[in-house]
Amino acid sequence: MSDSPSPTSSGELVRAVYHLSGPEGEIPRRARDICVEQTVEFPEELIARQDIREGIIGRVVSIEPVRPELSEVTIGYPVGVVGTELPQLLNVLFGNISLQPGIRLMGFDLPRSLADGFRGPRFGRRGIRALLGAPTRPILGTAIKPMGLSPRELADLATDLALGGMDVIKDDHGLVDQAFCRFDERVARVAEAVARARSTTGRPCLYLPNVTGPSDEIERRARAAVDAGAGGLVVSPGLVGFDAMRRMADDADLAVPIFSHPALLGSFTVSPRQGIAHGALYGQINRLAGADACIFPSFGGRFAFTEDECRGIAEATRAPMGRIESIFPVPAGGMSLDRIPELRRFYGDDVILLIGGDLHRGGPDLVESCRSFGRRACD
Amino acid sequence: MSDSPSPTSSGELVRAVYHLSGPEGEIPRRARDICVEQTVEFPEELIARQDIREGIIGRVVSIEPVRPELSEVTIGYPVGVVGTELPQLLNVLFGNISLQPGIRLMGFDLPRSLADGFRGPRFGRRGIRALLGAPTRPILGTAIKPMGLSPRELADLATDLALGGMDVIKDDHGLVDQAFCRFDERVARVAEAVARARSTTGRPCLYLPNVTGPSDEIERRARAAVDAGAGGLVVSPGLVGFDAMRRMADDADLAVPIFSHPALLGSFTVSPRQGIAHGALYGQINRLAGADACIFPSFGGRFAFTEDECRGIAEATRAPMGRIESIFPVPAGGMSLDRIPELRRFYGDDVILLIGGDLHRGGPDLVESCRSFGRRACD
Repeated sequence: MSDSPSPTSSGELVRAVYHLSGPEGEIPRRARDICVEQTVEFPEELIARQDIREGIIGRVVSIEPVRPELSEVTIGYPVGVVGTELPQLLNVLFGNISLQPGIRLMGFDLPRSLADGFRGPRFGRRGIRALLGAPTRPILGTAIKPMGLSPRELADLATDLALGGMDVIKDDHGLVDQAFCRFDERVARVAEAVARARSTTGRPCLYLPNVTGPSDEIERRARAAVDAGAGGLVVSPGLVGFDAMRRMADDADLAVPIFSHPALLGSFTVSPRQGIAHGALYGQINRLAGADACIFPSFGGRFAFTEDECRGIAEATRAPMGRIESIFPVPAGGMSLDRIPELRRFYGDDVILLIGGDLHRGGPDLVESCRSFGRRACD
Repeated sequence: MSDSPSPTSSGELVRAVYHLSGPEGEIPRRARDICVEQTVEFPEELIARQDIREGIIGRVVSIEPVRPELSEVTIGYPVGVVGTELPQLLNVLFGNISLQPGIRLMGFDLPRSLADGFRGPRFGRRGIRALLGAPTRPILGTAIKPMGLSPRELADLATDLALGGMDVIKDDHGLVDQAFCRFDERVARVAEAVARARSTTGRPCLYLPNVTGPSDEIERRARAAVDAGAGGLVVSPGLVGFDAMRRMADDADLAVPIFSHPALLGSFTVSPRQGIAHGALYGQINRLAGADACIFPSFGGRFAFTEDECRGIAEATRAPMGRIESIFPVPAGGMSLDRIPELRRFYGDDVILLIGGDLHRGGPDLVESCRSFGRRACD
């Protein structure tokens, strides 16, 4: 067994941009502390070896004041510290310092050698548009809900939604494998209903089961879903880990679009001086982890994301990122038919509009409500 | 294929306690919104069916003012909504509402039928004490670091630490499978070194490799570690998901203690009016997810957890939780030999003291520094 090579630096850096709140005079020391905390996690003065000091410990690239009590700090981590693994990338970017107040990860930039190790989304915007034969218009999405309906009832609902022209029909993210709605039965019935509706309308329509589940069950569910005819998958990386999603995206046997749901991710963004910025989390990390579309609660719905925060997400879904494709923003969380013009003005037409409960407010003719959604979205 | 049964409620509730900040007059409506958001996520007025209203939607159990602008709200969720899966339990407790400001999950209580479905820690405090033959004294823990040392160097370090009487020697949580320190080589060399030292001292000593890694690699690493003679495992559930840890704890082929590391979990606790309370996250959720010991940054070190927050964690590691064992609190994050008396007064002797870098400040004789640690901890 030969010993590993020494940590000689290639010179390539993972650059992370942080906002640090607090007095400007303390920023240089705090920035240096981050360099140590996120790498050697060891008293720096006790490290004499030059290869570790240069090849492992992070370095402060720049410090810029933003406004009183807020500074932007860029730190470069030697790429070898990250290796090639997504959990370790998240660890180096924000693992231990997530436990410190007043530090927010604003974004990051990977050297090409590292970025090229990530496939990212298998479909992205272009791939989803190709599957749907919809090169430029907004994509119409909805969910089957409420929880408590049986698989048969959800299938009936999906039939109407597909006949009404929905492009994407996802499981509500709370549908897992409860006794009143078993995963296998739900997916089989709904996929069959959507296939039948497709043969009636002659239009593509993707059904996306929610495969979020136990670590030892998620892969089976994803395969069962695809085998049953699912056109995509919904995963909540906050519940199962971003790398579980990455694994599905990398799995050539699945090869369907993946929609990322934000459940449990809110604590990362909810406090403006801590956590991870919206664009970094929902855009950059989701893309690296293979999401093709990113569901998030848009401004003006039941949640509290601001226009600026939503703009940050939308921009990060399409910002250049090596060879990693742009992905769809999916503003959601209490969107209504009335707001479609406003959503289109804000997000543009390269968007998936997700309207759930509000489709049911238009009375019993769900097919007609869907058509109304389509007219408003595509006029 | 028979249709699923309707969601008739068993009457059993998962009770979640939240702190809501904001004007008292708005609390009843916000509490009701949580009941709907975390279950049906659908306009409540459109749900006529009694079985869904009673068997799915949460109910407000109590609302109590805590102080101006802060109320404690207890919500009961029908147990059938959760089913039996940990990711869905996390989703129901805090999934979508993590995205709302001013809501903090303080704790939860599971009905026996649900709690009994979780094995929890395989060892817990009692099991770890039995493995170490240490029925009452504080357990001595340390880490091999800094990152950048080769497997051979880390093994030499581990030899000294084991000869010095450490009970638990863990990988630094940043050691994964980097080119300068491959997982398989590190684990083989360090496990062998620790075994050799054990045969010298005649004392038990557990080596805990860090198996945090890609979703499709973590199980292989855990098995390889145990096969190589590891006496436990370190996992960062914030990086790979709590259920990935639960899966390892449930795996009878592994059957070694699991130490949970807090990397990336900080955003859940960092802001006092949002997220998840320290005891609920590090105590309750870690225990459900099978951790036998829970590493957290103690007050007075490099991090900012307060005494109250640390007390909350320590209490939650041992609070009654059905048949689920109590687990060890592992205060860490810049602990020093000087602080041992204070740590013992605060945490008591049913604790694992984890001292990393500070052991190296005592000069080149690491074996003697470890003995000094042991004397201070066990006098």
